[in-house]
Amino acid sequence: MAEFKQKAFGLAATDTSGVLSPFHFSRRDNGDDDVTIKILYCGVCHSDLHSVKNDWGLTQYPIVPGHEISGVVTKIGNNVEKFKVGDRVGVGVLVNSCRTCDVCQQDLESYCPKMIFTYNSTDKDGTMTYGGYSDTVVVDQHFVLRFPDNVPSDAGAPLLCAGITVYSPMKYYGMTEAGKHLGVAGLGGLGHVAVKLGKAFGLKVTVISTSPKKKEEALNKLGADAFVVSTDAADLQAAMGTMDFIIDTIAAVHSLSPLLSLLKMNGKLVTVGLPDKPLNLPIFPLVAGRKMIGGSDFGGIKETQEMLDFCGKHGIAADIELIRADEINAAMVRLAKSDVRYRFVIDIGNSISNL
Amino acid sequence: MAEFKQKAFGLAATDTSGVLSPFHFSRRDNGDDDVTIKILYCGVCHSDLHSVKNDWGLTQYPIVPGHEISGVVTKIGNNVEKFKVGDRVGVGVLVNSCRTCDVCQQDLESYCPKMIFTYNSTDKDGTMTYGGYSDTVVVDQHFVLRFPDNVPSDAGAPLLCAGITVYSPMKYYGMTEAGKHLGVAGLGGLGHVAVKLGKAFGLKVTVISTSPKKKEEALNKLGADAFVVSTDAADLQAAMGTMDFIIDTIAAVHSLSPLLSLLKMNGKLVTVGLPDKPLNLPIFPLVAGRKMIGGSDFGGIKETQEMLDFCGKHGIAADIELIRADEINAAMVRLAKSDVRYRFVIDIGNSISNL
Repeated sequence: MAEFKQKAFGLAATDTSGVLSPFHFSRRDNGDDDVTIKILYCGVCHSDLHSVKNDWGLTQYPIVPGHEISGVVTKIGNNVEKFKVGDRVGVGVLVNSCRTCDVCQQDLESYCPKMIFTYNSTDKDGTMTYGGYSDTVVVDQHFVLRFPDNVPSDAGAPLLCAGITVYSPMKYYGMTEAGKHLGVAGLGGLGHVAVKLGKAFGLKVTVISTSPKKKEEALNKLGADAFVVSTDAADLQAAMGTMDFIIDTIAAVHSLSPLLSLLKMNGKLVTVGLPDKPLNLPIFPLVAGRKMIGGSDFGGIKETQEMLDFCGKHGIAADIELIRADEINAAMVRLAKSDVRYRFVIDIGNSISNL
Repeated sequence: MAEFKQKAFGLAATDTSGVLSPFHFSRRDNGDDDVTIKILYCGVCHSDLHSVKNDWGLTQYPIVPGHEISGVVTKIGNNVEKFKVGDRVGVGVLVNSCRTCDVCQQDLESYCPKMIFTYNSTDKDGTMTYGGYSDTVVVDQHFVLRFPDNVPSDAGAPLLCAGITVYSPMKYYGMTEAGKHLGVAGLGGLGHVAVKLGKAFGLKVTVISTSPKKKEEALNKLGADAFVVSTDAADLQAAMGTMDFIIDTIAAVHSLSPLLSLLKMNGKLVTVGLPDKPLNLPIFPLVAGRKMIGGSDFGGIKETQEMLDFCGKHGIAADIELIRADEINAAMVRLAKSDVRYRFVIDIGNSISNL
């Protein structure tokens, strides 16, 4: 493992058990375009769980997960004008890209073929990237986000992946017209932010979930307008053909037919969960209703900043369960059962040094 | 069976063998809004084959198929001003709809929940509709299309289903910008018209087919710019990520993965074939490339007329094999094997009375 001058400490998994344990490593020196950040909070994304267990077959151990990072700037390079020491900042899913290709030029770095993920990627210097379950990180200024004043560092951290992953398709697929009807399938980390964003855009928002017990909270706490239990035939029948769009955040393999039936003609279903097996795609509903199914990933840097600013303006943050660093393995067990309302966030600043 | 004054004679299937045999029936009297048409030609659509064999479980026997009808007007009702006796006209997939719902008001009759198909539908008077494998048809003027001077009645007939089914999604999904790259998957009745329309819109058109033997004709006769054998890894690799859109006309169950890999970022795949089983939808390519899969049906009446006029302007018609009425059963056997270049058309006018 390469050795650098900036010492770092965090949580790493070393095998497919996915168990996270204390891990000493180092970060590169702060370069001319770099920002060094003292990490205060890091959200726990479902991708972290997949990655530590190598569910996608892409993991290189040891792996330090975490790509919903918030903190404060502790060093800036000579070329850095956007940030100063003490600024509240964040880092999301990406820490670099080629910066020159077509998609990078369009501020769509998240689709760059040479993008470098915040963890488990090979960086430009040949070393592995390590994520936010750690005390410090060094990132090129282009990939550092500014936290608006009224986005909190703890509940705001999940916006950097969960937030932008639902905001970006809402913008791209035209889901922001006030008065339209949005369905949000799956009420987890992504889904609950989608409800809040949908309401901020002036949409009618209906949550679609297998869990009737989430209904009261969806309506009364998150502000959804309606709730459909996706396994209840009467519920589905009553809502059939009423939705303009659906954001499908369900990460498990699931049936698309009930969701497609909820869409109006010309309706759009956008999938942002990442089921690891193909879904069954029935063709008749697509053809008979001129409906479409689209995908979207976690968005570019410019749009991520726009999303943070939008959340600041509308008072949107995630609903979180704050945990200590030593609680991460128990939290992962709960996350695997979707037992979280709605995002775990690790209180890195107050607990990582106590490991 | 209801008896009307206008006698009609055609070809009907009476059981799931799908064998077509001579059939005497009657058409309703020509009403005030009706046009009676002497049928000259009728295209043989794959849907006809599915319907006579009851593949979709919706067939009511006896069934007279045929919804790519061309002919001449022989009678008009008192309210008919659009047409006069002797006009060359056509009838497509629909002969009526509610005319009042949202989609009808938007000239999208093909999506009306109360649409009445040209055959195998229950008409407003409670009788069954019978299609164009017959000598005459009576249709409300709203659903009658005018043939432009330079669209021939024989090779133009397939435009009324095959043509509009590919034209409509090309318009709706924005596939008409000159210089963009269109893939046409499947080179049959729909696909070969899609190639011609694509070239008329100024697109680069690549045919994607399992049959290398179609290559020469696709390039030299139909005017495609390139040809990809979808089962050839090197062909696929070379074309990967180069297409802006794909029209997928394949009616059989098939893999979407190779097609999705051919699309650029933000690429659109539109499926107009109707596989009778769900396809496997891999989610990663959709998410990683912000790609989408949409459907589209056979278009509204206004757009069908627009398509016919466009074809007239650009000299587009189907490539057909003209058959006599007594050759229909042999043609159906060949159609089931996709052994046709590229559409059978029955010479109704010169052969139906000889049955």
